[in-house]
Amino acid sequence: MSKVDAAQLGARAEAMIKTLGAISAEPDRLVRLFLTPEHRRAADLVAGWMREAGLPVSEDALGTVRGSIGQGPRLLIGSHIDTVIDAGRYDGPLGVIAGILAVSHFNGKPPLPIDVLAFGDEEGSRFPSTLSSSAACAGAFEASSLAYADRQGMTFAAALAAYGKDSGAIAQAAYRPADVRGYIEVHIEQGPRLEAQQQPLGIVTGIVGQSRLRVTVTGEAGHAGTVPMAMRRDALAGAAEMTLLMERIGRAGDEMVATVGRLDVLPGATNVIPAKVVFTLDLRCMDDGARASAVAHFEREARAIAAARDLGFEVETFHAVDAVPCDPRMQELLAGAVTDVGGHALRLPSGAGHDAQMMARLCPAAMMFVRCKGGISHNPAEYASPADMGLAVAALIRFIERFASQ
Amino acid sequence: MSKVDAAQLGARAEAMIKTLGAISAEPDRLVRLFLTPEHRRAADLVAGWMREAGLPVSEDALGTVRGSIGQGPRLLIGSHIDTVIDAGRYDGPLGVIAGILAVSHFNGKPPLPIDVLAFGDEEGSRFPSTLSSSAACAGAFEASSLAYADRQGMTFAAALAAYGKDSGAIAQAAYRPADVRGYIEVHIEQGPRLEAQQQPLGIVTGIVGQSRLRVTVTGEAGHAGTVPMAMRRDALAGAAEMTLLMERIGRAGDEMVATVGRLDVLPGATNVIPAKVVFTLDLRCMDDGARASAVAHFEREARAIAAARDLGFEVETFHAVDAVPCDPRMQELLAGAVTDVGGHALRLPSGAGHDAQMMARLCPAAMMFVRCKGGISHNPAEYASPADMGLAVAALIRFIERFASQ
Repeated sequence: MSKVDAAQLGARAEAMIKTLGAISAEPDRLVRLFLTPEHRRAADLVAGWMREAGLPVSEDALGTVRGSIGQGPRLLIGSHIDTVIDAGRYDGPLGVIAGILAVSHFNGKPPLPIDVLAFGDEEGSRFPSTLSSSAACAGAFEASSLAYADRQGMTFAAALAAYGKDSGAIAQAAYRPADVRGYIEVHIEQGPRLEAQQQPLGIVTGIVGQSRLRVTVTGEAGHAGTVPMAMRRDALAGAAEMTLLMERIGRAGDEMVATVGRLDVLPGATNVIPAKVVFTLDLRCMDDGARASAVAHFEREARAIAAARDLGFEVETFHAVDAVPCDPRMQELLAGAVTDVGGHALRLPSGAGHDAQMMARLCPAAMMFVRCKGGISHNPAEYASPADMGLAVAALIRFIERFASQ
Repeated sequence: MSKVDAAQLGARAEAMIKTLGAISAEPDRLVRLFLTPEHRRAADLVAGWMREAGLPVSEDALGTVRGSIGQGPRLLIGSHIDTVIDAGRYDGPLGVIAGILAVSHFNGKPPLPIDVLAFGDEEGSRFPSTLSSSAACAGAFEASSLAYADRQGMTFAAALAAYGKDSGAIAQAAYRPADVRGYIEVHIEQGPRLEAQQQPLGIVTGIVGQSRLRVTVTGEAGHAGTVPMAMRRDALAGAAEMTLLMERIGRAGDEMVATVGRLDVLPGATNVIPAKVVFTLDLRCMDDGARASAVAHFEREARAIAAARDLGFEVETFHAVDAVPCDPRMQELLAGAVTDVGGHALRLPSGAGHDAQMMARLCPAAMMFVRCKGGISHNPAEYASPADMGLAVAALIRFIERFASQ
């Protein structure tokens, strides 16, 4: 194994995070959207870093920056450089920077061919599309998304043309499966588990499946003073029972999370019994069967709650996506690499979506999580320490070596 | 007892309700606000009916129409002719019309002196004031309310002047207690209890006391996918428990009602754990002590719920008013009168506010409720049948006879 100075790598990562984090559409907060002038500047900065690391650079039809070294089937290392509105600086850039620093470590002679990828549309902050850059690389780009418009009414297709790209060339952005050995992504956890376990690094077991439901509970409006308790059909009281039911189901599940994040009460006046409540459920789990059972369990018991209260009950699943397990062999190699640098290789699922879930359609994919302060993300307070970032780059270097030699 | 034709009285009441209900500021819905041209037209119509019934008419400084007959200490019969926005036709007018029809029955020779009063500001739909007309009659008018402005920025004082009234004369609108023997008001129930009991008429035991509280529950926002259930501080789950607690307290109370009518979730996104929930409580009861105990019970247990979930908890009482019992002797006379016309004299509290609660400051006060369809009020669908209204007028006539002879 080559000698690695994690502290120095961490300091370099920190400096690069700051430089990239300064590229924003707004002076007082970080906003870097897909196919904007800020995307251009960030892509140019990243391309410069790639060249310094000895990687010849190209761009595909969606503006994904690709630094390639070596000939033949390759390891892909990537993440994204677009941000949410009022973002933190680590979500996305850390994975790109970790890839560049890891390859740089090998001084132009990595143990296998590598492409470092900087995707431009992971967050879906500009168009209703999301993961479109990694979809193009995985050969899964949905052409219909080119008709999506941003808040100013500009379409994805028009924005692409203005960025100097040819939408007719998107199909050529796809890797051939035979040319790719695997995809790995380093990302901040965006949750509190590594911090709670006092571990700098974690091995992602997969990206959880998700069900989003919209529940409508219908009762009857009435005067808060004149309708006796026994004669009420209070939609909010019913929805409150269902909210607690959902919480119990989430708590009982293995690695399951369940959230009622939005709840609107109509008419919503102090002195009127609620006539209608609409709320959302967000249920996530690595086990798709367990998630389906939980949804069925909720529907069954919530319907009983509604019946007991003489309330109307409707439920609609408006979003559902299956879990994407990370490649077991790559997880093992990654666990070895994390152990090499002194970590405990804690395994945990990713509750959020990532480019890795799209790249898993192309090839074996894996992710390494880096501890972030307070689990905070999508927020200017987002933070990962230079020490943890340095360890992550060191572990990525070890992973590359282990992956090449197996 | 004089002969009474309830069916004919009901038909007359129905016709008068329709005529008065046609006076509106808008062609497609009923809007009749205090001190507007519509108030003027309604007051003139009512004054004409009073004169036809043999009552000399005057108006006080707030525009309350007063039809007086007889000399000496008198019975007051009243209600209001202002409406909410998009109102029904019965809420208020029925009490004024019932008074006119009842007095009319005596052909200019009622068994005691009577004033029929048509108040103009019960609903508080124009200015933030409410019950200001009956307050003036009871000698409880708050001069500070003259500074209130309506939605167009016109003050109560300016509107009064434009209506041709002298705000300096408001004090003279007050009755001297020695001149008044009692106040009675006929009103639609605005609730479902008489309908459920298949009774046309009810005896009001009093106007309930009320506490309105604002509760703020503070947790911590977090990603719906990445924060494990055990590490959450979910403000909405806590608020849901408190909502059900409030419902249990309301159900356990004697003639108590408890409502969470408004509940706002922040940030209110499908994929974000709720950081903060603000909700209102509306608690009403005839027993002020029981209401105070219920508020204390809620605060104590809600605080425990918050503590168990590591949530912040703040509660603020932003409105509190004590119960106003109806006069027991008048209730008895009214019960006798209702029995006279074949009713069962069901006793029930009023969960809504009425002019009677203000008039109770001046003299013994009582109310008779009339069944309304589905308990619906403050809505164009508001309805009381001619048969029930006729019975109410008949019972009011019997009440006047009983009240005069005791």
